Amino acid sequence: MTPPPFPGPIRVVLVRPSHPGNIGAAARAMKTMGFSDLRLVSPRRAPDGEAEALAAGAADVLARARSGDRLEEALAGTVLAAGFSARARDLSHALRSLREAAPAILEAAARGGAALVFGNETYGLTNEELGHCAMQVSIPANPAYSSLNLAAAVQVACYELSAAAQSFAPPEAAARMGATSEDLEALLAHWESAMREAGYLDPAQPGRLMERLRRLLARAALERSEVKLLRGMLAAFETRMRR
Amino acid sequence: MTPPPFPGPIRVVLVRPSHPGNIGAAARAMKTMGFSDLRLVSPRRAPDGEAEALAAGAADVLARARSGDRLEEALAGTVLAAGFSARARDLSHALRSLREAAPAILEAAARGGAALVFGNETYGLTNEELGHCAMQVSIPANPAYSSLNLAAAVQVACYELSAAAQSFAPPEAAARMGATSEDLEALLAHWESAMREAGYLDPAQPGRLMERLRRLLARAALERSEVKLLRGMLAAFETRMRR
Repeated sequence: MTPPPFPGPIRVVLVRPSHPGNIGAAARAMKTMGFSDLRLVSPRRAPDGEAEALAAGAADVLARARSGDRLEEALAGTVLAAGFSARARDLSHALRSLREAAPAILEAAARGGAALVFGNETYGLTNEELGHCAMQVSIPANPAYSSLNLAAAVQVACYELSAAAQSFAPPEAAARMGATSEDLEALLAHWESAMREAGYLDPAQPGRLMERLRRLLARAALERSEVKLLRGMLAAFETRMRR
Repeated sequence: MTPPPFPGPIRVVLVRPSHPGNIGAAARAMKTMGFSDLRLVSPRRAPDGEAEALAAGAADVLARARSGDRLEEALAGTVLAAGFSARARDLSHALRSLREAAPAILEAAARGGAALVFGNETYGLTNEELGHCAMQVSIPANPAYSSLNLAAAVQVACYELSAAAQSFAPPEAAARMGATSEDLEALLAHWESAMREAGYLDPAQPGRLMERLRRLLARAALERSEVKLLRGMLAAFETRMRR
Protein backbone atom coordinates (compact mmCIF):
# COMPACT_ATOMS: atom_id res chain seq x y z
CA MET A 1 0.00 0.00 0.00
CA THR A 2 3.02 2.28 -0.11
CA PRO A 3 3.76 4.15 -3.32
CA PRO A 4 6.64 2.79 -5.35
CA PRO A 5 9.78 4.80 -5.97
CA PHE A 6 9.55 6.91 -9.09
CA PRO A 7 11.65 5.99 -12.12
CA GLY A 8 13.51 9.32 -11.92
CA PRO A 9 13.28 12.83 -10.51
CA ILE A 10 9.97 14.67 -10.78
CA ARG A 11 9.63 18.21 -9.50
CA VAL A 12 6.64 20.46 -8.96
CA VAL A 13 6.88 24.03 -10.24
CA LEU A 14 4.42 26.68 -9.04
CA VAL A 15 4.42 29.74 -11.27
CA ARG A 16 3.38 33.07 -9.74
CA PRO A 17 1.37 31.59 -6.86
CA SER A 18 -0.59 34.32 -5.06
CA HIS A 19 -1.18 32.79 -1.64
CA PRO A 20 1.52 31.44 0.67
CA GLY A 21 -1.09 29.12 2.20
CA ASN A 22 -1.48 27.40 -1.16
CA ILE A 23 2.26 26.88 -1.40
CA GLY A 24 2.23 25.18 1.98
CA ALA A 25 -0.78 23.04 1.15
CA ALA A 26 0.89 22.03 -2.14
CA ALA A 27 4.03 20.99 -0.23
CA ARG A 28 1.90 18.80 2.02
CA ALA A 29 0.10 17.27 -0.97
CA MET A 30 3.45 16.49 -2.62
CA LYS A 31 4.95 14.85 0.42
CA THR A 32 1.97 12.57 1.02
CA MET A 33 2.63 11.07 -2.40
CA GLY A 34 6.40 10.85 -2.01
CA PHE A 35 7.46 14.01 -3.88
CA SER A 36 9.92 16.49 -2.39
CA ASP A 37 11.33 18.86 -5.04
CA LEU A 38 9.31 22.09 -5.08
CA ARG A 39 10.26 25.14 -7.18
CA LEU A 40 8.63 28.54 -7.03
CA VAL A 41 8.70 31.07 -9.85
CA SER A 42 7.98 34.67 -8.81
CA PRO A 43 5.66 33.93 -5.89
CA ARG A 44 3.69 37.05 -5.00
CA ARG A 45 4.66 36.55 -1.38
CA ALA A 46 7.41 34.31 -0.05
CA PRO A 47 6.34 31.32 2.04
CA ASP A 48 5.46 32.53 5.54
CA GLY A 49 3.84 31.33 8.74
CA GLU A 50 0.59 30.53 6.97
CA ALA A 51 2.46 28.46 4.41
CA GLU A 52 4.19 26.57 7.21
CA ALA A 53 0.92 25.96 9.02
CA LEU A 54 -0.68 24.48 5.92
CA ALA A 55 2.42 22.46 5.06
CA ALA A 56 1.93 20.66 8.39
CA GLY A 57 4.40 17.76 8.43
CA ALA A 58 5.86 18.82 5.08
CA ALA A 59 7.76 21.83 6.45
CA ASP A 60 10.97 20.23 5.14
CA VAL A 61 9.67 20.30 1.55
CA LEU A 62 8.72 23.93 1.98
CA ALA A 63 12.04 24.87 3.56
CA ARG A 64 14.00 23.29 0.71
CA ALA A 65 11.84 24.87 -2.03
CA ARG A 66 13.95 26.93 -4.41
CA SER A 67 12.58 30.21 -5.64
CA GLY A 68 13.54 32.32 -8.64
CA ASP A 69 12.26 34.74 -11.23
CA ARG A 70 12.44 32.64 -14.36
CA LEU A 71 10.54 29.54 -15.41
CA GLU A 72 13.51 28.44 -17.53
CA GLU A 73 15.65 28.21 -14.41
CA ALA A 74 13.03 26.19 -12.58
CA LEU A 75 12.97 23.73 -15.49
CA ALA A 76 16.75 23.42 -15.81
CA GLY A 77 17.85 19.80 -15.97
CA THR A 78 14.47 18.35 -16.88
CA VAL A 79 13.71 16.70 -20.22
CA LEU A 80 9.95 17.21 -20.09
CA ALA A 81 7.78 19.93 -18.61
CA ALA A 82 4.07 19.13 -18.32
CA GLY A 83 1.98 22.29 -18.08
CA PHE A 84 -1.32 21.90 -16.26
CA SER A 85 -4.13 23.77 -17.93
CA ALA A 86 -7.67 22.84 -18.78
CA ARG A 87 -8.09 25.43 -21.51
CA ALA A 88 -7.28 24.59 -25.10
CA ARG A 89 -5.06 27.31 -26.57
CA ASP A 90 -4.50 29.02 -29.84
CA LEU A 91 -1.13 27.55 -30.56
CA SER A 92 -1.94 24.57 -28.53
CA HIS A 93 -0.15 21.36 -27.91
CA ALA A 94 -2.20 18.23 -27.95
CA LEU A 95 -4.20 18.43 -24.72
CA ARG A 96 -3.89 15.17 -22.82
CA SER A 97 -5.77 14.07 -19.76
CA LEU A 98 -3.67 13.47 -16.66
CA ARG A 99 -4.24 9.72 -16.88
CA GLU A 100 -3.14 9.60 -20.51
CA ALA A 101 -0.11 11.79 -19.78
CA ALA A 102 1.19 9.94 -16.71
CA PRO A 103 3.21 7.22 -18.52
CA ALA A 104 4.99 9.80 -20.70
CA ILE A 105 5.84 11.89 -17.63
CA LEU A 106 7.25 8.83 -15.85
CA GLU A 107 9.25 7.92 -18.94
CA ALA A 108 10.70 11.45 -19.06
CA ALA A 109 11.61 11.11 -15.37
CA ALA A 110 13.51 7.95 -16.26
CA ARG A 111 15.27 9.78 -19.12
CA GLY A 112 16.53 12.55 -16.83
CA GLY A 113 13.77 14.40 -15.04
CA ALA A 114 10.26 15.80 -15.41
CA ALA A 115 8.50 18.91 -14.14
CA LEU A 116 4.82 19.36 -13.30
CA VAL A 117 4.08 23.03 -13.93
CA PHE A 118 1.11 24.81 -12.33
CA GLY A 119 0.09 28.40 -12.95
CA ASN A 120 -1.36 31.16 -10.83
CA GLU A 121 -4.52 30.34 -8.81
CA THR A 122 -6.67 32.75 -10.80
CA TYR A 123 -5.07 33.02 -14.22
CA GLY A 124 -3.35 29.69 -14.68
CA LEU A 125 -0.41 29.51 -17.07
CA THR A 126 0.07 32.17 -19.73
CA ASN A 127 0.60 31.11 -23.34
CA GLU A 128 4.23 32.12 -23.00
CA GLU A 129 4.66 29.92 -19.92
CA LEU A 130 2.91 27.01 -21.63
CA GLY A 131 5.31 27.50 -24.51
CA HIS A 132 8.07 26.20 -22.24
CA CYS A 133 6.12 22.99 -21.68
CA ALA A 134 6.36 20.09 -24.10
CA MET A 135 3.00 18.78 -23.04
CA GLN A 136 -0.27 20.31 -21.91
CA VAL A 137 -2.12 18.27 -19.32
CA SER A 138 -5.65 18.67 -18.02
CA ILE A 139 -7.36 17.20 -15.00
CA PRO A 140 -10.78 16.25 -16.36
CA ALA A 141 -13.38 18.05 -14.28
CA ASN A 142 -17.04 18.92 -14.04
CA PRO A 143 -17.69 21.34 -16.92
CA ALA A 144 -20.17 23.18 -14.71
CA TYR A 145 -17.57 23.68 -11.98
CA SER A 146 -13.98 22.84 -12.77
CA SER A 147 -12.38 24.94 -10.07
CA LEU A 148 -9.90 22.68 -8.26
CA ASN A 149 -7.81 24.76 -5.95
CA LEU A 150 -4.07 24.80 -6.53
CA ALA A 151 -3.16 22.33 -3.79
CA ALA A 152 -6.00 20.02 -4.84
CA ALA A 153 -4.65 19.97 -8.41
CA VAL A 154 -1.15 19.22 -7.12
CA GLN A 155 -2.59 16.46 -4.91
CA VAL A 156 -4.43 14.82 -7.80
CA ALA A 157 -1.42 15.06 -10.14
CA CYS A 158 0.94 13.56 -7.56
CA TYR A 159 -1.56 10.82 -6.74
CA GLU A 160 -1.99 9.87 -10.41
CA LEU A 161 1.76 9.67 -10.99
CA SER A 162 2.23 7.64 -7.85
CA ALA A 163 -0.54 5.23 -8.89
CA ALA A 164 0.75 5.03 -12.48
CA ALA A 165 4.26 4.30 -11.21
CA GLN A 166 2.93 1.04 -9.76
CA SER A 167 2.51 -0.39 -13.22
CA PHE A 168 5.23 1.55 -15.00
CA ALA A 169 7.83 -0.43 -16.89
CA PRO A 170 10.94 1.66 -17.55
CA PRO A 171 11.74 2.01 -21.24
CA GLU A 172 14.42 -0.13 -22.83
CA ALA A 173 17.87 0.92 -21.69
CA ALA A 174 17.95 4.60 -22.51
CA ALA A 175 18.58 4.53 -26.22
CA ARG A 176 17.13 8.03 -26.15
CA MET A 177 18.95 10.73 -24.21
CA GLY A 178 16.43 13.50 -23.76
CA ALA A 179 17.51 17.07 -24.43
CA THR A 180 17.46 19.17 -21.27
CA SER A 181 15.79 22.54 -21.07
CA GLU A 182 19.25 24.17 -21.20
CA ASP A 183 19.97 22.35 -24.48
CA LEU A 184 16.70 23.68 -25.81
CA GLU A 185 17.30 27.25 -24.67
CA ALA A 186 20.74 27.24 -26.26
CA LEU A 187 19.29 25.84 -29.47
CA LEU A 188 16.59 28.52 -29.55
CA ALA A 189 19.10 31.31 -28.91
CA HIS A 190 21.27 29.94 -31.69
CA TRP A 191 18.31 29.66 -34.03
CA GLU A 192 17.12 33.19 -33.29
CA SER A 193 20.52 34.65 -33.97
CA ALA A 194 20.84 32.72 -37.23
CA MET A 195 17.40 33.87 -38.38
CA ARG A 196 18.28 37.47 -37.60
CA GLU A 197 21.47 37.14 -39.53
CA ALA A 198 19.51 35.74 -42.44
CA GLY A 199 17.09 38.65 -42.23
CA TYR A 200 14.19 36.25 -41.66
CA LEU A 201 13.56 37.59 -38.16
CA ASP A 202 13.21 41.35 -37.87
CA PRO A 203 14.05 42.33 -34.28
CA ALA A 204 11.83 45.38 -34.68
CA GLN A 205 8.86 43.23 -35.71
CA PRO A 206 9.47 39.77 -34.35
CA GLY A 207 5.82 38.73 -34.37
CA ARG A 208 5.24 35.29 -32.87
CA LEU A 209 8.01 33.56 -34.75
CA MET A 210 10.09 32.58 -31.74
CA GLU A 211 7.05 31.59 -29.72
CA ARG A 212 5.88 29.29 -32.49
CA LEU A 213 9.32 27.80 -32.93
CA ARG A 214 9.60 27.22 -29.19
CA ARG A 215 6.30 25.37 -29.10
CA LEU A 216 7.13 23.28 -32.09
CA LEU A 217 10.43 22.21 -30.55
CA ALA A 218 8.90 21.63 -27.14
CA ARG A 219 6.30 19.37 -28.70
CA ALA A 220 8.94 17.42 -30.56
CA ALA A 221 10.57 16.27 -27.26
CA LEU A 222 13.99 16.41 -28.85
CA GLU A 223 16.83 14.06 -28.10
CA ARG A 224 20.25 15.44 -27.30
CA SER A 225 21.62 14.09 -30.55
CA GLU A 226 18.90 15.94 -32.46
CA VAL A 227 19.76 19.21 -30.75
CA LYS A 228 23.34 18.65 -31.81
CA LEU A 229 22.23 17.96 -35.37
CA LEU A 230 20.09 21.11 -35.55
CA ARG A 231 22.82 23.28 -34.09
CA GLY A 232 25.27 21.82 -36.57
CA MET A 233 22.85 22.76 -39.32
CA LEU A 234 22.52 26.32 -37.99
CA ALA A 235 26.30 26.65 -37.76
CA ALA A 236 26.58 25.52 -41.37
CA PHE A 237 24.07 28.18 -42.47
CA GLU A 238 25.97 30.80 -40.53
CA THR A 239 29.25 29.80 -42.11
CA ARG A 240 27.68 29.95 -45.57
CA MET A 241 26.07 33.33 -44.86
CA ARG A 242 29.38 34.79 -43.76
CA ARG A 243 31.33 33.76 -46.81
CA MET B 1 -11.95 16.27 -21.18
CA THR B 2 -15.19 16.29 -19.18
CA PRO B 3 -15.80 13.45 -16.76
CA PRO B 4 -18.35 10.90 -17.90
CA PRO B 5 -21.59 10.42 -16.04
CA PHE B 6 -21.33 7.83 -13.30
CA PRO B 7 -23.08 4.47 -13.74
CA GLY B 8 -25.25 5.14 -10.67
CA PRO B 9 -25.48 7.25 -7.52
CA ILE B 10 -22.35 7.68 -5.42
CA ARG B 11 -22.46 9.67 -2.20
CA VAL B 12 -19.75 10.95 0.10
CA VAL B 13 -20.24 10.40 3.83
CA LEU B 14 -18.15 12.35 6.36
CA VAL B 15 -18.29 10.79 9.80
CA ARG B 16 -17.68 13.07 12.83
CA PRO B 17 -15.77 15.77 10.94
CA SER B 18 -14.22 18.27 13.37
CA HIS B 19 -13.76 21.35 11.21
CA PRO B 20 -16.50 23.06 9.19
CA GLY B 21 -13.81 24.34 6.81
CA ASN B 22 -12.99 20.76 5.86
CA ILE B 23 -16.65 20.05 5.12
CA GLY B 24 -16.72 23.02 2.76
CA ALA B 25 -13.46 22.05 1.06
CA ALA B 26 -14.76 18.49 0.66
CA ALA B 27 -17.93 19.82 -1.00
CA ARG B 28 -15.77 21.79 -3.44
CA ALA B 29 -13.61 18.75 -4.17
CA MET B 30 -16.71 16.65 -4.85
CA LYS B 31 -18.30 19.14 -7.19
CA THR B 32 -15.16 19.56 -9.32
CA MET B 33 -15.40 15.85 -10.11
CA GLY B 34 -19.15 15.81 -10.72
CA PHE B 35 -20.36 14.52 -7.33
CA SER B 36 -23.15 16.23 -5.40
CA ASP B 37 -24.56 13.99 -2.66
CA LEU B 38 -22.87 14.79 0.66
CA ARG B 39 -23.94 13.28 4.00
CA LEU B 40 -22.68 14.27 7.42
CA VAL B 41 -22.77 12.03 10.47
CA SER B 42 -22.47 13.85 13.81
CA PRO B 43 -20.31 16.76 12.66
CA ARG B 44 -18.72 18.46 15.68
CA ARG B 45 -19.94 21.79 14.35
CA ALA B 46 -22.57 22.38 11.68
CA PRO B 47 -21.39 23.92 8.41
CA ASP B 48 -20.92 27.66 8.94
CA GLY B 49 -19.44 30.69 7.23
CA GLU B 50 -15.99 29.12 7.07
CA ALA B 51 -17.45 26.02 5.43
CA GLU B 52 -19.21 28.21 2.87
CA ALA B 53 -16.04 30.17 2.15
CA LEU B 54 -14.07 27.00 1.48
CA ALA B 55 -16.89 25.45 -0.54
CA ALA B 56 -16.48 28.38 -2.96
CA GLY B 57 -18.66 27.58 -5.99
CA ALA B 58 -19.96 24.39 -4.36
CA ALA B 59 -22.23 26.14 -1.88
CA ASP B 60 -25.14 24.22 -3.41
CA VAL B 61 -23.59 20.87 -2.50
CA LEU B 62 -23.03 22.11 1.04
CA ALA B 63 -26.54 23.52 1.36
CA ARG B 64 -28.09 20.24 0.26
CA ALA B 65 -25.90 18.09 2.52
CA ARG B 66 -27.99 15.97 4.88
CA SER B 67 -26.86 15.59 8.45
CA GLY B 68 -27.77 13.00 11.06
CA ASP B 69 -26.53 11.07 14.06
CA ARG B 70 -26.26 7.59 12.65
CA LEU B 71 -24.00 6.13 10.00
CA GLU B 72 -26.66 3.54 9.15
CA GLU B 73 -29.00 6.35 8.11
CA ALA B 74 -26.35 7.97 5.95
CA LEU B 75 -25.83 4.64 4.16
CA ALA B 76 -29.53 3.92 3.63
CA GLY B 77 -30.26 2.93 0.06
CA THR B 78 -26.70 2.04 -0.90
CA VAL B 79 -25.53 -1.45 -1.76
CA LEU B 80 -21.85 -0.88 -0.98
CA ALA B 81 -20.07 1.33 1.53
CA ALA B 82 -16.34 1.81 0.97
CA GLY B 83 -14.59 2.89 4.17
CA PHE B 84 -11.42 4.91 3.66
CA SER B 85 -8.68 3.93 6.06
CA ALA B 86 -5.01 3.24 5.60
CA ARG B 87 -4.64 1.15 8.74
CA ALA B 88 -5.07 -2.60 8.63
CA ARG B 89 -7.41 -3.67 11.43
CA ASP B 90 -7.90 -6.57 13.73
CA LEU B 91 -11.04 -7.87 12.18
CA SER B 92 -10.11 -6.44 8.92
CA HIS B 93 -11.59 -6.64 5.50
CA ALA B 94 -9.25 -7.11 2.64
CA LEU B 95 -7.55 -3.73 2.30
CA ARG B 96 -7.70 -2.59 -1.32
CA SER B 97 -5.96 0.36 -2.89
CA LEU B 98 -8.25 3.05 -4.29
CA ARG B 99 -7.30 2.14 -7.84
CA GLU B 100 -8.10 -1.53 -7.30
CA ALA B 101 -11.36 -0.67 -5.55
CA ALA B 102 -12.72 1.81 -8.09
CA PRO B 103 -14.32 -0.69 -10.51
CA ALA B 104 -16.16 -2.47 -7.66
CA ILE B 105 -17.45 0.85 -6.35
CA LEU B 106 -18.70 1.83 -9.83
CA GLU B 107 -20.35 -1.56 -10.21
CA ALA B 108 -22.11 -1.10 -6.86
CA ALA B 109 -23.27 2.32 -8.04
CA ALA B 110 -24.78 0.63 -11.08
CA ARG B 111 -26.48 -1.94 -8.83
CA GLY B 112 -28.17 0.71 -6.72
CA GLY B 113 -25.75 3.10 -5.08
CA ALA B 114 -22.38 3.36 -3.37
CA ALA B 115 -21.03 5.39 -0.45
CA LEU B 116 -17.50 6.67 0.09
CA VAL B 117 -17.08 6.88 3.86
CA PHE B 118 -14.44 9.08 5.48
CA GLY B 119 -13.71 9.30 9.21
CA ASN B 120 -12.69 12.07 11.55
CA GLU B 121 -9.65 14.18 10.58
CA THR B 122 -7.60 12.93 13.51
CA TYR B 123 -8.94 9.51 14.37
CA GLY B 124 -10.29 8.21 11.09
CA LEU B 125 -13.01 5.56 11.18
CA THR B 126 -13.53 3.46 14.29
CA ASN B 127 -13.66 -0.31 13.98
CA GLU B 128 -17.39 -0.13 14.61
CA GLU B 129 -17.84 2.38 11.78
CA LEU B 130 -15.70 0.30 9.43
CA GLY B 131 -17.91 -2.64 10.34
CA HIS B 132 -20.68 -0.95 8.37
CA CYS B 133 -18.49 -0.88 5.29
CA ALA B 134 -18.25 -3.86 2.95
CA MET B 135 -14.86 -2.75 1.72
CA GLN B 136 -11.86 -1.01 3.22
CA VAL B 137 -10.03 1.27 0.83
CA SER B 138 -6.67 2.95 1.22
CA ILE B 139 -5.09 5.77 -0.71
CA PRO B 140 -1.48 4.61 -1.08
CA ALA B 141 0.76 7.24 0.44
CA ASN B 142 4.27 8.01 1.54
CA PRO B 143 4.91 5.75 4.53
CA ALA B 144 7.01 8.51 6.08
CA TYR B 145 4.16 11.03 5.78
CA SER B 146 0.75 9.74 4.84
CA SER B 147 -1.27 12.62 6.20
CA LEU B 148 -3.63 13.70 3.42
CA ASN B 149 -6.08 16.18 4.80
CA LEU B 150 -9.75 15.25 4.67
CA ALA B 151 -10.65 17.34 1.61
CA ALA B 152 -7.52 16.12 -0.21
CA ALA B 153 -8.57 12.50 0.40
CA VAL B 154 -12.07 13.26 -0.89
CA GLN B 155 -10.54 15.01 -3.93
CA VAL B 156 -8.34 12.03 -4.78
CA ALA B 157 -11.16 9.51 -4.28
CA CYS B 158 -13.57 11.50 -6.48
CA TYR B 159 -10.89 11.98 -9.13
CA GLU B 160 -10.07 8.27 -9.23
CA LEU B 161 -13.72 7.28 -9.59
CA SER B 162 -14.24 9.88 -12.28
CA ALA B 163 -11.18 8.66 -14.19
CA ALA B 164 -12.15 4.99 -13.72
CA ALA B 165 -15.66 5.73 -14.98
CA GLN B 166 -14.13 6.62 -18.36
CA SER B 167 -13.31 2.98 -19.00
CA PHE B 168 -16.07 1.38 -16.94
CA ALA B 169 -18.30 -1.13 -18.68
CA PRO B 170 -21.53 -1.63 -16.74
CA PRO B 171 -22.09 -5.24 -15.69
CA GLU B 172 -24.45 -7.46 -17.67
CA ALA B 173 -28.07 -6.41 -17.15
CA ALA B 174 -28.44 -6.46 -13.39
CA ALA B 175 -28.82 -10.16 -12.77
CA ARG B 176 -27.72 -9.27 -9.25
CA MET B 177 -29.95 -7.01 -7.19
CA GLY B 178 -27.74 -5.77 -4.40
CA ALA B 179 -29.09 -5.79 -0.86
CA THR B 180 -29.48 -2.30 0.51
CA SER B 181 -28.14 -1.26 3.89
CA GLU B 182 -31.71 -1.35 5.24
CA ASP B 183 -32.04 -4.98 4.10
CA LEU B 184 -28.82 -5.71 5.93
CA GLU B 185 -29.84 -3.92 9.12
CA ALA B 186 -33.14 -5.76 9.21
CA LEU B 187 -31.34 -9.06 8.65
CA LEU B 188 -28.89 -8.32 11.47
CA ALA B 189 -31.68 -7.36 13.87
CA HIS B 190 -33.53 -10.53 12.98
CA TRP B 191 -30.39 -12.61 13.42
CA GLU B 192 -29.59 -11.05 16.78
CA SER B 193 -33.05 -11.71 18.12
CA ALA B 194 -32.97 -15.30 16.90
CA MET B 195 -29.57 -15.88 18.54
CA ARG B 196 -30.82 -14.45 21.80
CA GLU B 197 -33.84 -16.66 21.67
CA ALA B 198 -31.55 -19.62 21.08
CA GLY B 199 -29.39 -18.59 24.06
CA TYR B 200 -26.35 -18.29 21.80
CA LEU B 201 -26.09 -14.56 22.38
CA ASP B 202 -26.10 -13.45 26.01
CA PRO B 203 -27.30 -9.82 26.13
CA ALA B 204 -25.30 -9.39 29.35
CA GLN B 205 -22.09 -10.58 27.71
CA PRO B 206 -22.49 -10.02 24.00
CA GLY B 207 -18.76 -9.92 23.24
CA ARG B 208 -18.00 -9.10 19.62
CA LEU B 209 -20.44 -11.55 18.13
CA MET B 210 -22.64 -9.01 16.36
CA GLU B 211 -19.67 -6.99 15.20
CA ARG B 212 -18.10 -10.05 13.64
CA LEU B 213 -21.35 -11.10 12.03
CA ARG B 214 -21.86 -7.61 10.64
CA ARG B 215 -18.40 -7.63 9.09
CA LEU B 216 -18.83 -11.04 7.60
CA LEU B 217 -22.12 -10.06 5.98
CA ALA B 218 -20.79 -6.71 4.80
CA ARG B 219 -17.88 -8.45 3.13
CA ALA B 220 -20.20 -10.91 1.43
CA ALA B 221 -21.92 -8.10 -0.53
CA LEU B 222 -25.25 -9.91 -0.32
CA GLU B 223 -27.91 -9.93 -2.95
CA ARG B 224 -31.48 -9.17 -2.01
CA SER B 225 -32.49 -12.73 -2.73
CA GLU B 226 -29.83 -13.96 -0.32
CA VAL B 227 -31.10 -11.69 2.43
CA LYS B 228 -34.54 -13.17 1.86
CA LEU B 229 -33.14 -16.68 2.04
CA LEU B 230 -31.28 -16.00 5.30
CA ARG B 231 -34.28 -14.38 6.90
CA GLY B 232 -36.41 -17.32 5.83
CA MET B 233 -33.89 -19.58 7.53
CA LEU B 234 -33.99 -17.51 10.73
CA ALA B 235 -37.77 -17.54 10.73
CA ALA B 236 -37.68 -21.32 10.38
CA PHE B 237 -35.37 -21.61 13.39
CA GLU B 238 -37.64 -19.35 15.39
CA THR B 239 -40.69 -21.39 14.53
CA ARG B 240 -38.91 -24.59 15.55
CA MET B 241 -37.64 -23.04 18.80
CA ARG B 242 -41.13 -21.97 19.76
CA ARG B 243 -42.73 -25.34 19.26
